[in-house]
Amino acid sequence: MDAAHLHYVIDTLFLLFASVLIILMVPGFAMLEAGLVRTKNVVAVLTGNVMLYAITSFIFTLWGYNVMFGGSGFFLEGVSVEGYSPYAYFFFQMAFVGKTVSIMSGGVSERIRIVPFMLFAVLMSGVIYPVVGNAIWGGGFLKEVHDLAGSTVIHSVGGWALLAGILVLGARRGKYTKEGHVRPIPASNIPLVTLGAMLLWIGWFGFNGGSALAISSHDNADLVAKVILNTNTAGLAGALIAAALMQYQYGKLDITMILNGALGGLVAITAAPDVSLWAPIVVGAIGGALVVFAVPVFDKLKIDD
Amino acid sequence: MDAAHLHYVIDTLFLLFASVLIILMVPGFAMLEAGLVRTKNVVAVLTGNVMLYAITSFIFTLWGYNVMFGGSGFFLEGVSVEGYSPYAYFFFQMAFVGKTVSIMSGGVSERIRIVPFMLFAVLMSGVIYPVVGNAIWGGGFLKEVHDLAGSTVIHSVGGWALLAGILVLGARRGKYTKEGHVRPIPASNIPLVTLGAMLLWIGWFGFNGGSALAISSHDNADLVAKVILNTNTAGLAGALIAAALMQYQYGKLDITMILNGALGGLVAITAAPDVSLWAPIVVGAIGGALVVFAVPVFDKLKIDD
Amino acid sequence: MDAAHLHYVIDTLFLLFASVLIILMVPGFAMLEAGLVRTKNVVAVLTGNVMLYAITSFIFTLWGYNVMFGGSGFFLEGVSVEGYSPYAYFFFQMAFVGKTVSIMSGGVSERIRIVPFMLFAVLMSGVIYPVVGNAIWGGGFLKEVHDLAGSTVIHSVGGWALLAGILVLGARRGKYTKEGHVRPIPASNIPLVTLGAMLLWIGWFGFNGGSALAISSHDNADLVAKVILNTNTAGLAGALIAAALMQYQYGKLDITMILNGALGGLVAITAAPDVSLWAPIVVGAIGGALVVFAVPVFDKLKIDD
Repeated sequence: MDAAHLHYVIDTLFLLFASVLIILMVPGFAMLEAGLVRTKNVVAVLTGNVMLYAITSFIFTLWGYNVMFGGSGFFLEGVSVEGYSPYAYFFFQMAFVGKTVSIMSGGVSERIRIVPFMLFAVLMSGVIYPVVGNAIWGGGFLKEVHDLAGSTVIHSVGGWALLAGILVLGARRGKYTKEGHVRPIPASNIPLVTLGAMLLWIGWFGFNGGSALAISSHDNADLVAKVILNTNTAGLAGALIAAALMQYQYGKLDITMILNGALGGLVAITAAPDVSLWAPIVVGAIGGALVVFAVPVFDKLKIDD
Repeated sequence: MDAAHLHYVIDTLFLLFASVLIILMVPGFAMLEAGLVRTKNVVAVLTGNVMLYAITSFIFTLWGYNVMFGGSGFFLEGVSVEGYSPYAYFFFQMAFVGKTVSIMSGGVSERIRIVPFMLFAVLMSGVIYPVVGNAIWGGGFLKEVHDLAGSTVIHSVGGWALLAGILVLGARRGKYTKEGHVRPIPASNIPLVTLGAMLLWIGWFGFNGGSALAISSHDNADLVAKVILNTNTAGLAGALIAAALMQYQYGKLDITMILNGALGGLVAITAAPDVSLWAPIVVGAIGGALVVFAVPVFDKLKIDD
Repeated sequence: MDAAHLHYVIDTLFLLFASVLIILMVPGFAMLEAGLVRTKNVVAVLTGNVMLYAITSFIFTLWGYNVMFGGSGFFLEGVSVEGYSPYAYFFFQMAFVGKTVSIMSGGVSERIRIVPFMLFAVLMSGVIYPVVGNAIWGGGFLKEVHDLAGSTVIHSVGGWALLAGILVLGARRGKYTKEGHVRPIPASNIPLVTLGAMLLWIGWFGFNGGSALAISSHDNADLVAKVILNTNTAGLAGALIAAALMQYQYGKLDITMILNGALGGLVAITAAPDVSLWAPIVVGAIGGALVVFAVPVFDKLKIDD
C-alpha cells in the first residue's frame, strides 16, 4: 500500500497547479502594462515583458535557484527538497522570479532602453533576488522575517529597485507641462487593462495559495483555502475603496483606478494572507486607498523636484 | 495513518481548481460584452463588469453566504460544512454569485446607469440570490428541484431579472429605425468576443464540474469527468447548429452567432450535465438553435411593442 | 478503506487539469493567428479557429475516439481504460485533436475558403488522425515509435498536411512583388499575438505534462513535474535564441520572432520532454533558431518557385 506516497503526489499536483496560475500572471502583467501605456510604446512594453520572463526564468533555472537554496552546481543539484517532487518545487520557485523584475518594469515603462534593462534582469534573477531570498527563505540571516508569500522577498525588493530606477530616470517625457502641471496619460486600451488585471488577480490565488507549499494535510488544506479566500477579499476591498474614493472625489468611477485599487489590495494582503476573515477587508482597503492617494502624491513630488 | 484526511484534502483542491475556473469567467464575460457593444460603450461595460464582480462577491462574502446556508452571523459563522475545507466551499460559492448579475448585465448593456445598477447588485447578492439559493440548495421549500449546477438558481434568476429589466428599459437607443426596422449593431471587437466566449466556455468546466462538489470517490470522479465532457459536447453542438443555421439561412458563417450558439448550448446543459453522452448533443443543439431563432423573434417583439 | 480508489481519483483530477490547460490553447491559437494576419482577415481567421475546434472535437467525440482506441461503436463504447475515469481520458484525448488541424490552419491562413477547410477538418479528425494515432498510441504497427506527447501524431501529421496544403495554395496574395521580392506582412495586433503565444505556452504544460497520463505514484509525480519544467526551459531557450539572432542580424529585437522562437522551442521539446534538465536548452534553442532561419529560407524557396 502506498498511501504515504499520496501526500507526495498531491502536493506535487498542488504546486504545479499554483505554478500555472503564477505564470498566468506573465500575460496578465503584459496586457495590463500594454493597455496602460501610450499606443506608440505598446510593442516595446510587450517585448520587455516577454524578454523579462525569458531572461529571469532562464537565469534562475540555470543557477539562481541553486544559489537561493544553497545548492552545489546548476539547476537543482545539491538542493534538498522533501515532501513533494523537487522538480515541482523548482518550477514553482522559477514561476516567482520574474515577478520581482515585472514590478519594476511597470514603474519605469516608456522610458528605458531594452538592452540595459535586460542586463539588469540578469543581475536581479542571478544575484540580487537569490541572495535576498536565501537570507529569508533559505534559512539565512533574515529567517525570522515572516513573509509567507513574498511581500518582502518579491514585492519590496522589486519596489526598492523601482524607486532607485525612478530617481535616476525621472518622470515620463510628456508627463508634465513646462509650468509643472500634470498632464494625464490616459490608458490606451482599457479592455487590455481589464484583462490583464483580472489575469493577475486570478494568478494571485496561485501566488499566495501556493506559498503554503503543501495542501495534503487537514490543516494545510484549510490554510490554502483560507489564504485564497482572503486574497480575493483583499482584492475586492481594494477595488471597492478605490471606486468609492473616485466617486466621492471626482463624481465618477474610473476603471483604471478601480483595477489598480484591486491590485493594491492584493499586494497589501500578500505579506500575511493567513489571518482572520475580517483582516483582508481592512488591509485590502488600505492598499486600495493608498493607490488612489499615491497618484497625486507622486505627481506632486515630481513637480517639486 | 491519515488516509481519511486525503479525501478532505483532494476535495478541497478540487473545489479550489473549480473556483479558479469559475472566476476566469469574470474576464470572460467582460471581454465578451466589451467586444459586442459599440466602441463608445466599451469602457462603461468593462467598469460595470468589474464593479459587479467586486460588489456582489464582497456582499456575498460578508453576509450573503451566511444567509444562503443558514448561518448565524457574518462570513461562514455557524455554517456547517463537511468533507472539505469550509473555506474552499465558501470560496466556491462566492465564485458563483457574480454570474447571476452578469447574465443580466449583458442583456441591459448600453442603456443603464452604473450606480443604480450597482444598488441592484447589492440587493441581488445580499438578498434575492441567497434566499432563492437557500430555498433550493440550502434545504428550503424548493429542495426537490433538481438543479445540479445552478440552471434555476443562477441562470433563471438572472434571466427573470433581465426580462424585467428589459421590459422597463426597452431596446437600445439606435436599435430600431423610425419605421420600426431593425438596425443591426455589429460587434465592435471580434477578437475580444472570441476570447471572452472561449474563457467562458473553459470556465464552464469548473462551473458544472465543480457543482458535483466532490471528486474523491470512484463514482464522483466519474461524475465530474462525465459532467465536464458533456458540458463541452453541448457547447460544440450549440456552436455547430448555429453555424449550420446561419449558413443555411444567410449563406455565410457568423462568428458572433456561432459563439452565442455555443454559449446557448452551455447554458442549456447546465441544468442536467449528468446525463448520457448523447443527450448533450440534443440539448446543446436546442440551446444553440434557440439563440439563432431568438434574435429575430425578440426584434419582432420589440417592433410590435 | 478506499485508499486504492484515491489513485483513480487523483489521476482523474490530473487529467482534467491537463485537459483544461490544453483547451486554453484554443483561444491561444486563435489570438495568435488573429494578431498575425492583416486586419481584413481577422474575422475569417477567428471564425476558422472556432469552427475547427467545434468540428474536430465533435467528430472525434462522436466516433474518432472510438476508431483511435479500437472501440466498437460511438463515444467510448468498447474502449477499455484503466487507472482513471474513462470520461477523463476521453476528454483529455478530445482536447488534443483540434491541435493537429490548428497547426495546419496557421500555415494556410489568409488564403483558404472556410467550407472546404471544414470538410478537411472532418476528414482529419474522423479518419486521418485517429488512424495514425491508433497505429502509434493504440498499439498498432507503429507502436515502437517513442512519442510521449504527440510530436509525430500531432505535430508532424499537422505539419505534413500543412506542407501539402502550401504546395497547392502557394504564397499569400501580396506576399511577393512582381520582381519576386518579399513584401513583409507585419502582424496587425501585437498584444493579441503576445497573449495568444503566452496562452499556448501555458497550455503546453498540460499538453506535455498530461501526456504522462498519470501522476499518482512517486515516479509519475516526478515525471510530470520534470516534463513541465523541461517544457518551460525549452520555450525560454527558444525565445532567447530568437532574440539573440535578431539582435545580431538586424540590431533590433522583434517580439513576433521572439514569441515564434519560444513556440519553436516548445514544439521541439514535445517529442521527448522526459530528458535531462540540460537537454531542453539545446533542443529549445535549435527549435527557436530554426524558426528564425526558416522564415527567409521559405521565402527564398517561394521566390525560386
